[in-house]
Amino acid sequence: MVHSKPLNELTATEIAAAIAADRTSCEEVVRACLDRIAARESEVQAWQYLDPDAAIAAARAFDRSGRQGPLAGVPFGVKDIIDTHDMPTEWGTPIHRGRRPRRDAACVALTRKAGGLLLGKTVTTEFANLHPGKTRNPHDPARTPAGSSSGSAAAVADLMVPIALGTQTTGSTIRPASFCGVFGYRPTYGEHRMHGVMEASGSLDTLGILARSIEDVALYRDVLLGVPPAPIVDLERPPRIGLCRTHVWDAIEPATRKLVEDAAQTLARAGARLGDVTLPGEFERLNDAHRWISSFEFARTFTFEIERHWQEISETLRKGRLADGLVCGFDRYVAAKEFAAQCRGQLDRVWQDHDVLLTAAAFGEAPVGRNAFVGAPLYQIWTALHVPSVTLPVFKGPAGMPVGAQLIARRHDDRGLFACARWAYRRLG
Amino acid sequence: MVHSKPLNELTATEIAAAIAADRTSCEEVVRACLDRIAARESEVQAWQYLDPDAAIAAARAFDRSGRQGPLAGVPFGVKDIIDTHDMPTEWGTPIHRGRRPRRDAACVALTRKAGGLLLGKTVTTEFANLHPGKTRNPHDPARTPAGSSSGSAAAVADLMVPIALGTQTTGSTIRPASFCGVFGYRPTYGEHRMHGVMEASGSLDTLGILARSIEDVALYRDVLLGVPPAPIVDLERPPRIGLCRTHVWDAIEPATRKLVEDAAQTLARAGARLGDVTLPGEFERLNDAHRWISSFEFARTFTFEIERHWQEISETLRKGRLADGLVCGFDRYVAAKEFAAQCRGQLDRVWQDHDVLLTAAAFGEAPVGRNAFVGAPLYQIWTALHVPSVTLPVFKGPAGMPVGAQLIARRHDDRGLFACARWAYRRLG
Repeated sequence: MVHSKPLNELTATEIAAAIAADRTSCEEVVRACLDRIAARESEVQAWQYLDPDAAIAAARAFDRSGRQGPLAGVPFGVKDIIDTHDMPTEWGTPIHRGRRPRRDAACVALTRKAGGLLLGKTVTTEFANLHPGKTRNPHDPARTPAGSSSGSAAAVADLMVPIALGTQTTGSTIRPASFCGVFGYRPTYGEHRMHGVMEASGSLDTLGILARSIEDVALYRDVLLGVPPAPIVDLERPPRIGLCRTHVWDAIEPATRKLVEDAAQTLARAGARLGDVTLPGEFERLNDAHRWISSFEFARTFTFEIERHWQEISETLRKGRLADGLVCGFDRYVAAKEFAAQCRGQLDRVWQDHDVLLTAAAFGEAPVGRNAFVGAPLYQIWTALHVPSVTLPVFKGPAGMPVGAQLIARRHDDRGLFACARWAYRRLG
Repeated sequence: MVHSKPLNELTATEIAAAIAADRTSCEEVVRACLDRIAARESEVQAWQYLDPDAAIAAARAFDRSGRQGPLAGVPFGVKDIIDTHDMPTEWGTPIHRGRRPRRDAACVALTRKAGGLLLGKTVTTEFANLHPGKTRNPHDPARTPAGSSSGSAAAVADLMVPIALGTQTTGSTIRPASFCGVFGYRPTYGEHRMHGVMEASGSLDTLGILARSIEDVALYRDVLLGVPPAPIVDLERPPRIGLCRTHVWDAIEPATRKLVEDAAQTLARAGARLGDVTLPGEFERLNDAHRWISSFEFARTFTFEIERHWQEISETLRKGRLADGLVCGFDRYVAAKEFAAQCRGQLDRVWQDHDVLLTAAAFGEAPVGRNAFVGAPLYQIWTALHVPSVTLPVFKGPAGMPVGAQLIARRHDDRGLFACARWAYRRLG
């Protein structure tokens, strides 16, 4: 221990700095993470694949290599729908048990290029869809960690690893980050290469980052873009924030609504120019649009599994997204895509008066039970709009469980989003 | 032989009808294709992987199964960057020699679901980029078949298989189709699932279809969308055609320019309402935009290969697209994406007065030599605009080699494009 806290509790930025300054080694960090996992995994069950001996050997090899990079020596977890050449990638389904890709996904290769050390594969729901995996909420094992990036959110929340890769097609990063109490980031659609990531719905899929600081999110985004990391900029003036309740506001738990509204007031008192943003009425149809786009595509992406392994697919998936997708006609699918594109154009006007929008990151606290997909309508809106969003772990609900505040920005203004998020987090966190 | 021509010369539509009517069997068709391949492959070299005994066994099994579907019993070829669970998929690079995916790409699974019989894997250029494969132009082995879907175009042109899958990120389907004298189709960006297809540049990549009739193209598109096949509609009136020379017109060979202009006059005499379409001046910048989008993305997609197998990558690729991509900054990349999106919006106005645009499908005939990537600027424009296009094999150049006429339509109006293409082909073909 070289910091005031144990190595497994450090952020990625802190670990990289400590290793670069020779205050610790990759091996020490990895051992600290593995110790935490050994103590907690029987309860949390975040990991789908983990080989402690191999991880220590890799860490030693890293230390001997003297390799540098923005994530040099930083352990990371990877959702088990993302290919890794040296670990299985099973997509949360028995159909692909033992599947061993030949190469790393682009995002994994970029993390390794930056010096990251792959610790293991984290649990995903089945095909990153509704049917839950084994992971439990680290704050209360009776509750869901949410999905689909369940293991990545739980592992980061439980101090097992500082950063982890997830994905998002509906709310699969923002939701588990909110439920587990960590930072979650869904990038602008299309900025990151998805090769080697299981496609769910190609028109909506993005990567997702789970981390314990906004600085780590920003650093990891640059790594995943393959560009030189740049620090988060300081805002020249407090941000213009639009409180956006959306048409699903009434479905959000009253306590969460109050937390978000109070946060808006806190930020206004700190200098933010606060306004209310009401989305155009027809944006209500984005929920249906998201449903048909994702279902149509999902049911075609998995034709191989549908044709050859139907009985090995969960009933949840067969009767849910696949049933939807197989009945959805092409005209409905294209109309949904064109409608979503039109809404994206309309949303552009919002950014003339607002730097970010503020809304809830979940309908409430993580519920008791295994339902990993609570509250899809809240996420469908923003995901269909292709905008970047982050959730900040700043609230506690009535049961003492974490709840996130979600900030949303203009497409490709992810760096602006981080600047506003850091400003807001310092006042709410 | 049950038709007036040998079985290997039939279209997919004709084969499916003949098998459904018990006038022939899948085995007879496959044997005819294999005989043609045996006679011609040493010259054409279209196939990367072919196991004749396994193909015959699969055809027999198909005949015994009595399976039905829109492509029941139709052999098809697949570009070797598209995953197949029962054949290697090597991406045109020694780095992935012997690579064996565990599942079929969505497009392969959908073709099989429709009854298609996978005959083999066709040659691609290295990573579907510039460095050529072994394939030669079936009309003149001294000439290039063009790339990157070299084997798929050559195999279809040489009557080895009625339909084949390709892809397009720049001109990789339209160009080889034009050079080899077959129909080529690049769909509206985003309509087809790309899972299991090697990503080159995810913001531009589409599937491509190579065929010997426009009816086969339309049928195969529906199969790949996973929707019930619908015949091409008859136009109620002759189409409104915009002759669009584009800003690269002067770089096109004079003989090809004359062929396209004469074809426009022929179609006008047949009743088409013909106009000239000049794209806005700033569309010249689409070439640069395409270059930076594709290079930035390509250089990140292949991080695994760049980091671990640099010396096994061709010099052409290292000093070309990868060098471009590794120097391209994120701001330039995003600016290029936003510019292309803005041009897409502007192009929408063209469709108020035109059903399709007509232009050249290549800068001229296939040149002598191995350069598989002639004339990228012509394709960059349309690919960056995400519009669907077909090339019709209707011209012969001064050397007697094929040249295509390219028709382009509004995004998502691929069926309208086919209707116009059939109308035009009947008057030019």
